[in-house]
Amino acid sequence: MKSQDKMRFFEQSEFEDRLRKVKESMYRQGMEVLLVTDPANMNYLTGYDGWSFYVHQGVLVFVDRDEPIWFGRQQDSNGARITTWLHNDNIFGYTDDYVQSNLKHPMDFAADLLKGRGYERKNLGVEMDNYYFTGQCLDTLRADLPHARIINANLLVNWVRLVKSDQEIAYMKMASRIVEKVMQTAIDTIAIGIREGDAAAAVYQAQISGTEEFTGDHSAIFPIMPSGIRTSTAHLSWVDRRYESGDIVLLELSGCKYRYHAPLSRTVMVGQPPKNLEDIAKTVVDGLNQVLDFIKPGVTGEEIEAKWRSAVAGSKVVKESRIGYAYGLNYPPDWGEHTVSLRPGDKNVLQPNMTIHVMPGIWLDEFGFECSEPIYITAKGCETFVNFERKLFVKKGT
Amino acid sequence: MKSQDKMRFFEQSEFEDRLRKVKESMYRQGMEVLLVTDPANMNYLTGYDGWSFYVHQGVLVFVDRDEPIWFGRQQDSNGARITTWLHNDNIFGYTDDYVQSNLKHPMDFAADLLKGRGYERKNLGVEMDNYYFTGQCLDTLRADLPHARIINANLLVNWVRLVKSDQEIAYMKMASRIVEKVMQTAIDTIAIGIREGDAAAAVYQAQISGTEEFTGDHSAIFPIMPSGIRTSTAHLSWVDRRYESGDIVLLELSGCKYRYHAPLSRTVMVGQPPKNLEDIAKTVVDGLNQVLDFIKPGVTGEEIEAKWRSAVAGSKVVKESRIGYAYGLNYPPDWGEHTVSLRPGDKNVLQPNMTIHVMPGIWLDEFGFECSEPIYITAKGCETFVNFERKLFVKKGT
Repeated sequence: MKSQDKMRFFEQSEFEDRLRKVKESMYRQGMEVLLVTDPANMNYLTGYDGWSFYVHQGVLVFVDRDEPIWFGRQQDSNGARITTWLHNDNIFGYTDDYVQSNLKHPMDFAADLLKGRGYERKNLGVEMDNYYFTGQCLDTLRADLPHARIINANLLVNWVRLVKSDQEIAYMKMASRIVEKVMQTAIDTIAIGIREGDAAAAVYQAQISGTEEFTGDHSAIFPIMPSGIRTSTAHLSWVDRRYESGDIVLLELSGCKYRYHAPLSRTVMVGQPPKNLEDIAKTVVDGLNQVLDFIKPGVTGEEIEAKWRSAVAGSKVVKESRIGYAYGLNYPPDWGEHTVSLRPGDKNVLQPNMTIHVMPGIWLDEFGFECSEPIYITAKGCETFVNFERKLFVKKGT
Repeated sequence: MKSQDKMRFFEQSEFEDRLRKVKESMYRQGMEVLLVTDPANMNYLTGYDGWSFYVHQGVLVFVDRDEPIWFGRQQDSNGARITTWLHNDNIFGYTDDYVQSNLKHPMDFAADLLKGRGYERKNLGVEMDNYYFTGQCLDTLRADLPHARIINANLLVNWVRLVKSDQEIAYMKMASRIVEKVMQTAIDTIAIGIREGDAAAAVYQAQISGTEEFTGDHSAIFPIMPSGIRTSTAHLSWVDRRYESGDIVLLELSGCKYRYHAPLSRTVMVGQPPKNLEDIAKTVVDGLNQVLDFIKPGVTGEEIEAKWRSAVAGSKVVKESRIGYAYGLNYPPDWGEHTVSLRPGDKNVLQPNMTIHVMPGIWLDEFGFECSEPIYITAKGCETFVNFERKLFVKKGT
C-alpha cells in the first residue's frame, strides 16, 4: 500500500477532534474502551468505508491510546488500509473460518485483541442497539471477557456526530445538489403508462451520475416511491406495473456524497387530484412552512413538534409519528442518526450546524402525502439545504 | 384494505409448506415459539416486504397456532396488510414512542404479545446472530420474560430456505435475465475517460429497468465495482474519478426480482492486461469450469472446495476465503443465506434446487480478479443461471 493510494475526505485534525470528543464522552461514562460496530461511527472515527458490514467488524477506541484499532475480515483489511488514516499495525483481519461459523465468532477475535492489550478486566462500552451488534456478539463478549464490565454505549458516537463540521455541511450541500436533480427526474418521468420500475431506474441513475462536477454515492435507504394504496404506509416502493390516472405517488429520495445524505420528500398526483388530497397538501405545506420559520438555536425537538401540531390543528391532518429527525453520514439500513427526534418528550436543544430532516409524512388509510425539507441550523434560524418547490405536483395526461 | 389490494407472489400452499417445515424444526429443537427478525425470513414466512427493517419488527411463529403474528411500527402495519397473507387480527403496530427511545423498546411490545397469549414461560427461539436482533433486543426479552427459556434459533429458517421451490427458481431465473443485461451494460460502459460514477449509474439503471417483460428490484448489496488498487480488497466500489489505461475493474453485480437474486462477477481490464493478470484469469476460469463440472447432488461443500484447490494447485492463485455460498431471497446488507459455504469443514450435502454462488474471488496485494457463476443443483449435476462468457474482458482504447 503506497501512501498516495490512501483516500481521505477529511483533514487529520478533524478525525482527531472527533476522537477527542468520543474519548471525553467515554471518560464521563466510565468507559476505558469502546467497541464501535455501527458502520457510520466506524467511518466517522477512522474513515473506513466499504460494504463489508454484512460480516462482523468493528473499531476499538481506548481512552488511553492515541489510535483506535480496526478489525474485520481478512479480505477487507486492504480496504481498511486504503480508506482509513490508521497505521498498518492497528489493522487486524480475521481468517475466513470466523465467517458465519458455529465454532468461532468474530467477537472472539475482538476479545483476543482486548486480552492481548490488558483490557480484559476493564469497562467496555458496546453499542447495544446497533444493527450490527447482535445478541450473539453480546453473549460472546460476556463469555470471553467474564471480568470486564460491559456498559451500554449505544449512540455515544452518534451524539458526537449531531453537530456537523463545516466540511460535513459542505458534503451535505453536494448531496443536496444531487437530490434536486433526482427529485426533478422522478417528477419528470412519472406519467400515465410509464412502468414504475423505469421511473425508479431513472431515479437511481440520477442519484449516482450526480452533477457535471461530481458523481454520487449509494444512499442508505432505497428510493421510496410507492403508488396508489401503497402510499397508505411508510416504506413500500415501486412494483411491476404502469402508472394510471388516479395514482398518487410518494417520493422519499436522497442524494448521497461521501456517505453524507440529503433526503427529500414530495408527492406526485397522476391525473386530477381529489379535493381531500389538495386540502391535505395545502395544510401540510403551510404547517411545514410555519415549522421552518420557527426553528432556531435554543428550541427543543418537542417545541418544534408542538408548533406543527398547532399549525395543523382543526384540519383533517393527523400525524401520530415524529415529524423529523437528525441525519447525515450513514450506511444501510437508515440515514437517520437516531438522536434528535421531533416529537413529544424530546428535550434536545437545537444548536448551529445540527442537520434535521423535517418530514411530516402523512399516511392515511387510503393514501398518503409527503413534503419534507432537509435543513441545517444557523446562528439565528435554519436554512433549507434544497431549493425545490413545496406543493403537490400534478401530472395530467391521457 | 380491500382484498384485491393484497400483493402475493406465491400460492398460499407454498407459505403453508414453509411454515410447516419451520414448525417441524422448532419442534425438534424444543421451541414453542420463534421470534423471526431477519427480513428475508419474515418475507419467506408471511410475504412481508418493505424497507422498514431499520426499526425493530418481527414475526412470531407458534408451534400450536396456525397463523404467525406480524409486529412492527404502526406506520408500517398497512404495509403488512398489503404484502402479507396474514389476517388483520394478526398484525400489530406499535406506537411511535417505541421508536429509538431510551424508555421503551419494541421488544417490550413483543414480550407483551407473548404474555397476552400465555407464552411467557415457554421456550422462545431467537435469531441470535441476525443483524436485526441486537444485544438490546436480547437483554430486553430476558428482562421482560424472566421465566421463558431463550434458545438460539439462529439460521433455523435460513436452513429451511436452502432448497428452493420451482416458483423460487423461476424468480431467480428472472433475476438472472436482469443480471445478464446489467453485466453487459457495465462492460460496455467502462472505458478510458468515463467517470466511474456514470458507469455505476448505468448499472443501477439496468438493474431496475430490467427487461422488456419485467422490471427489477433493488439488490441486497450495492454494485461492487472498484478499480485499480481498490481491487485488492473485497468490498470497495466506484469513486469520483475517470477510468484510465491500466485500470483493472472488478464487477460483482446482481439482478433482483421479488427479492430473489442473481449475483455475478466478471473483471474488466482497461488497456493492455499485464501478463500476470492474464495468467491468473486463465487459472481461475479453468478452476471454475472444473468446479462446475464436479458439482452434483451428494457432494459436500468441502469436497467442492478441495476440487478447486487441486485445480489451481501449482499456479500463482492462492485463495484463503470460501469459494462460494448459498443465496436467494434477501434484503440488505447481504444476499448470502449464511448456510452452505464452499470451504474446508463444510459437511453439507448438496441437493437438487439448492442455489449457490460459486465465487472464487482473488484479491492480491496489488489487484484482484473475479469470475463467478450463480448455479442451481439439478437431478444429476448443476446448471448455471446465467449465460455470460467466462474470461477477462479487455477494453482497449486511447
